[in-house]
Amino acid sequence: MACQCPPLSEVIPIKVEDEIFRQPLTPLSATYVGHVGHVGHGVTDGALSVSGGQMDEQKEGGTQLKLIIDYPNGIQALFKPMRFARDVQTLPDHFYFSDYERHNAEIAAFHLDRILGFRRAMPVVGRVLNMTTEIYDVTEGDILKTFFVSPANNFCFHGKCSYYCDTGHAICGHPDTLEGSFAAFLPPDEIAKRKVWRHPWRRSYHKRRKAQWELESDYCDTIRQTPPYDSGRRLLDLVDMAIFDFLTGNMDRHHYETFRMFGNETFTLHLDQGRAFGKAFHDELSILAPLLQCCLVRHTTLRTLLTFHNGVPLSESLRVAMDEDPVAPILWEPHLAALDRRLAVVLDAVRKCVDKTAAAAAAAADDNDV
Amino acid sequence: MACQCPPLSEVIPIKVEDEIFRQPLTPLSATYVGHVGHVGHGVTDGALSVSGGQMDEQKEGGTQLKLIIDYPNGIQALFKPMRFARDVQTLPDHFYFSDYERHNAEIAAFHLDRILGFRRAMPVVGRVLNMTTEIYDVTEGDILKTFFVSPANNFCFHGKCSYYCDTGHAICGHPDTLEGSFAAFLPPDEIAKRKVWRHPWRRSYHKRRKAQWELESDYCDTIRQTPPYDSGRRLLDLVDMAIFDFLTGNMDRHHYETFRMFGNETFTLHLDQGRAFGKAFHDELSILAPLLQCCLVRHTTLRTLLTFHNGVPLSESLRVAMDEDPVAPILWEPHLAALDRRLAVVLDAVRKCVDKTAAAAAAAADDNDV
Repeated sequence: MACQCPPLSEVIPIKVEDEIFRQPLTPLSATYVGHVGHVGHGVTDGALSVSGGQMDEQKEGGTQLKLIIDYPNGIQALFKPMRFARDVQTLPDHFYFSDYERHNAEIAAFHLDRILGFRRAMPVVGRVLNMTTEIYDVTEGDILKTFFVSPANNFCFHGKCSYYCDTGHAICGHPDTLEGSFAAFLPPDEIAKRKVWRHPWRRSYHKRRKAQWELESDYCDTIRQTPPYDSGRRLLDLVDMAIFDFLTGNMDRHHYETFRMFGNETFTLHLDQGRAFGKAFHDELSILAPLLQCCLVRHTTLRTLLTFHNGVPLSESLRVAMDEDPVAPILWEPHLAALDRRLAVVLDAVRKCVDKTAAAAAAAADDNDV
Repeated sequence: MACQCPPLSEVIPIKVEDEIFRQPLTPLSATYVGHVGHVGHGVTDGALSVSGGQMDEQKEGGTQLKLIIDYPNGIQALFKPMRFARDVQTLPDHFYFSDYERHNAEIAAFHLDRILGFRRAMPVVGRVLNMTTEIYDVTEGDILKTFFVSPANNFCFHGKCSYYCDTGHAICGHPDTLEGSFAAFLPPDEIAKRKVWRHPWRRSYHKRRKAQWELESDYCDTIRQTPPYDSGRRLLDLVDMAIFDFLTGNMDRHHYETFRMFGNETFTLHLDQGRAFGKAFHDELSILAPLLQCCLVRHTTLRTLLTFHNGVPLSESLRVAMDEDPVAPILWEPHLAALDRRLAVVLDAVRKCVDKTAAAAAAAADDNDV
């Protein structure tokens, strides 16, 4: 089937030949929500309209409820609905794979990725919509059958997906006003095909099993010798991603994607941050495993982290960055406070690596002395 | 297969021939937990032991997790685990059929049924158990595979059932201490066979459909002409049950049971109150439909209700009745307060029926005068 989507040059005002995808995804000039509007046109500027479009599809293959929004101009957005208030955290007995997705985690993670200078996440913006006119009235297909009015007289729907898509886990408006996140879509395969990679530090996704990297102390030695991690930027990118995920508390990085057209020379995309910002008072050190096990970090990343550590705190910078989002405040304060605490943990880990390397070098020097 | 259970005369110290089941289920002398111990021997007196028994089965056909406990003496109990704190209410957007079961609702409903003089519910008692030694170590079968240690280091299991039996809805101890309710079992079919009846005021169990009784104002006229409701005690029993369920807020009365041996002359059992006491601040008037639509109530029931209304309040009487339960306090105070409020609603409904009947009689008298 021919692609109905607009050419990439219309979606992102830089030609593919300019190799925007080789380095960051979003332009440096995209400093706040209003400016990133050109990537997901209509999503961010309050001119959103689905009246001529369709909101009739759920994203296929998803484990939790999300909707694809088709705009009249052919642009699409990925909608994730709000389930809980900002201060609701991951249930203590829930694993990372049982955790609910949080729409505000997507918004916050996009801004964090941006201010950290990675710019590998697609723009996401929050918005309050009317479920009746903006979803129900312009929706077709089976999902319509999942709409209902709850005992509290709220308008609800649950869609169809593998987890939490039933009457007992419905998404409900108040009474039909619903907040959600809208993420711009990457260009379709016809324009920029992507490759999906299994993350080498993927978790087991089993409640009683551990992953290989959790059992082998020299796991990084194996990875360092395995393409595409044996050369180029890839391993450094995964360490960046580990730092990014550690800061947000995202344990759900089972796969990652890259654009095919640049082979192994392109950056790793930061896609799907729905399970970030779940535990404000717990720092999950295992997320840092790529950094801890490989003792490797990109110089520019370290420089950026130090800038925040010694200057305007990361929490404050992110708070300001998210201030203009229509559904601000985006994060519960303890999640912002966690960022500064975790940044110090990352820097401490780097310091230990430096010490270890220095000690190893010293030991090597000693050996040479012998 | 031959029944391994003890004869009924050993379980309940009154012979079947004495027709205990024709009138109430439990003896009048069973005024508190300690006294009802003889019905579910071992369940209530702290001598519970499953070390020689098995706790390897879940109740078949159940929608939510419960376990059958086999005691060495052949007695069984139905265990329902605690999921939430006492003050957690039914989620506002949850239907009666999506609501979680509450172990304490079973305990409270048993005592309420008893002090109201119905005595049609099996004894239930609360207890805190050690999941490791009292469940895991003495359990066999597939359910063992559902045990795990959660991220918060609590011991959990989820069993297998139609609703809420997965990792995301596991029952977790603290860390392996778990509270639950233990209900005595009715005698097995070989001793006292029961008949399951579809409740005429059954709800639709569908989020968009209504039941016949919700649509027809003269629904009771139809039921009054339909056996077994056209004669005997049955319709009066259903009104009792409606009052009982209205007081506890239980909307989940889709079927009811009676003992077969007494035909239609026996009482209706009050079984399964797991979804009672869910909304402390909402009085669900539709539960009273049998009373409201039939304008019928048993004299002794009315007398009992008036005694509580004019004497020691129902809330206080129930609080005292439950005081000796090992896991007391059983109910969140607003649920107790709701009982007195709802009792007044029942009496008001009866008053309106009386007025209506008096008016009808007066109208009939007027007609006769003409």
